[in-house]
Amino acid sequence: MSAQAPRNDRFLRALRREPVDRPPAWIMRQAGRYLPEYRATREKAGSFMALCRNAELCAEVVRQPLQRYPQLDAAILFSDILTVPDAMGLGLSFAAGEGPVFAHPVRSGAQIDALPVPDPEVELRYVMDAVRTIRADLANALPLIGFAGSPWTIACYMVEGRSTRDFHRIKALRYTDPAALHRLLAKITQATTAYLAAQLAAGAQALMLFDSWGGVLSHADFREFSLDYGAQIRAALPQDVPVIWFSKGGGQWLEAQAGAGFAALGLDWTVDLAAARAGVGQRLALQGNLDPAALLGSPEQLRARTQAVLDAAGPAPGYIFNLGHGITPDVGPEALQVVLETVAAA
Amino acid sequence: MSAQAPRNDRFLRALRREPVDRPPAWIMRQAGRYLPEYRATREKAGSFMALCRNAELCAEVVRQPLQRYPQLDAAILFSDILTVPDAMGLGLSFAAGEGPVFAHPVRSGAQIDALPVPDPEVELRYVMDAVRTIRADLANALPLIGFAGSPWTIACYMVEGRSTRDFHRIKALRYTDPAALHRLLAKITQATTAYLAAQLAAGAQALMLFDSWGGVLSHADFREFSLDYGAQIRAALPQDVPVIWFSKGGGQWLEAQAGAGFAALGLDWTVDLAAARAGVGQRLALQGNLDPAALLGSPEQLRARTQAVLDAAGPAPGYIFNLGHGITPDVGPEALQVVLETVAAA
Repeated sequence: MSAQAPRNDRFLRALRREPVDRPPAWIMRQAGRYLPEYRATREKAGSFMALCRNAELCAEVVRQPLQRYPQLDAAILFSDILTVPDAMGLGLSFAAGEGPVFAHPVRSGAQIDALPVPDPEVELRYVMDAVRTIRADLANALPLIGFAGSPWTIACYMVEGRSTRDFHRIKALRYTDPAALHRLLAKITQATTAYLAAQLAAGAQALMLFDSWGGVLSHADFREFSLDYGAQIRAALPQDVPVIWFSKGGGQWLEAQAGAGFAALGLDWTVDLAAARAGVGQRLALQGNLDPAALLGSPEQLRARTQAVLDAAGPAPGYIFNLGHGITPDVGPEALQVVLETVAAA
Repeated sequence: MSAQAPRNDRFLRALRREPVDRPPAWIMRQAGRYLPEYRATREKAGSFMALCRNAELCAEVVRQPLQRYPQLDAAILFSDILTVPDAMGLGLSFAAGEGPVFAHPVRSGAQIDALPVPDPEVELRYVMDAVRTIRADLANALPLIGFAGSPWTIACYMVEGRSTRDFHRIKALRYTDPAALHRLLAKITQATTAYLAAQLAAGAQALMLFDSWGGVLSHADFREFSLDYGAQIRAALPQDVPVIWFSKGGGQWLEAQAGAGFAALGLDWTVDLAAARAGVGQRLALQGNLDPAALLGSPEQLRARTQAVLDAAGPAPGYIFNLGHGITPDVGPEALQVVLETVAAA
């Protein structure tokens, strides 16, 4: 399937650093709770995970922002980064107001060594079914992005067992038994590589690795415990598939990230986009980085902040507009309209 | 009082970038819950704020880590950065398990304009009494650091009303009514300048501004909404008093911080200390930046990580050892012993 190029190829061209008529745009969590039509579909599904497990409803929520905002240049798989550890047997649930919770967090070397590596077409078949259904539904109008969490980020959830502010359980593991943590990261890397290869086989045309917690590592540890595992996944996938790497809070380590083989780096809102471009040169594409909270502001401020991001990106090819993090539920859909109209006028 | 130099002047010498026999060391939250003797005193006081309001007990908890760890080279006032907004009438309390809560958060321009600027020797007299009592108790053995929150950080708490993960209320204010936010920041700046000047008059010999939330700002906003107000406070205080500025999450903006007039910059654990030194040169001192979570690890790892920080600091004068953030309650006191013995052997 992925051999057929989509009719709108701005996003894929920008990933190859080819000229485009205007910067391509997509939005992290564009299929999300800020949209009333999404909330209605989720209500119908019963829960977030039930929605993830229903391929037709996944295709429906992927379609919703594309129908509302014709300026969007890519679709992204509707799923969650925690499907992989769930398939490794950790028992994922979402507690109201608490976020994800694992019934069986991983704490010891013995637990790590006993973890299975899931077969993506068996334990994660529902995700592959979603990829196939969404891809068919898109009918080659737009490219489809597949994704996974970075091994470090997934390990954080697997060891902590839930969202955390201090990451003390995983840090304690890192500072008491780094060899065990490396075995865990290697296993997640193996599972994630198979998972992303299966997404490609099912029809994904580009991939993104979300290193949501890379930024909590020390300077000395970022490469060893996060980036190197992302680079391993990248190296194990077909070289013609573009992979985007996004380390939230990783703005101090762009040089290391730029040398890890990715087609593009995602940038959060704390990064100076113009300086980032000057630093990485034309080695790879950049994606981002409007402060998601700007969408809570006035249309005037929002237009100005969006334009400032476009100005910082400059005229060089290889730029993809996005927010610096996912769009949040408290944003009104009309705010994203302001953003996307500003990008489309660029 | 502050004219008398303390007998141990490593810390003050390092702040002036003068040679020292070994790097001075102090630890953020060194008087804190990780110490059983602190927990006993706090128990006796009844609550955290009752402890802050009892000058004799403040002196007691300041003395505790100095007695346990002879390697410490500075004492810091025992207080909280939220004393200032509490004195501005916001009604501070500490909810169990929730952290600080303000009964009267500030949300509108009218509320901002109605805020009083407290007189430090009236509404904040209990803090000045603590400074005087601690300073007398130290008997010039060690220098005493006074402190306050940065205006941006205090504004975050005043607008959000409590701890937050997304900072959406203050960001919404920034993106809808930036002029009102600037009025709030100016008022906090005025209050903080008077507060720190009073701490100096009461006996503090160095000052630190905690910009705990500077790192949540966008690249474009850090200087305008945080750093510039810190620089205003610095400029309004006597020029011979060393002021340390610590923006947690501000590692991408060290160059701007280095030009703002401070004697030293605090660095969190994500910063490459060697690169930071190369970047700022000998313009100012640097302080930090061991990952606080390293104290949860094995003694071998902890010794190695501490030595790595000392190695990164290099032989240049103007370095102060510290953690990259406050020591946490789940750390054992023997872990800090390992750290400080490693520093003392440097």
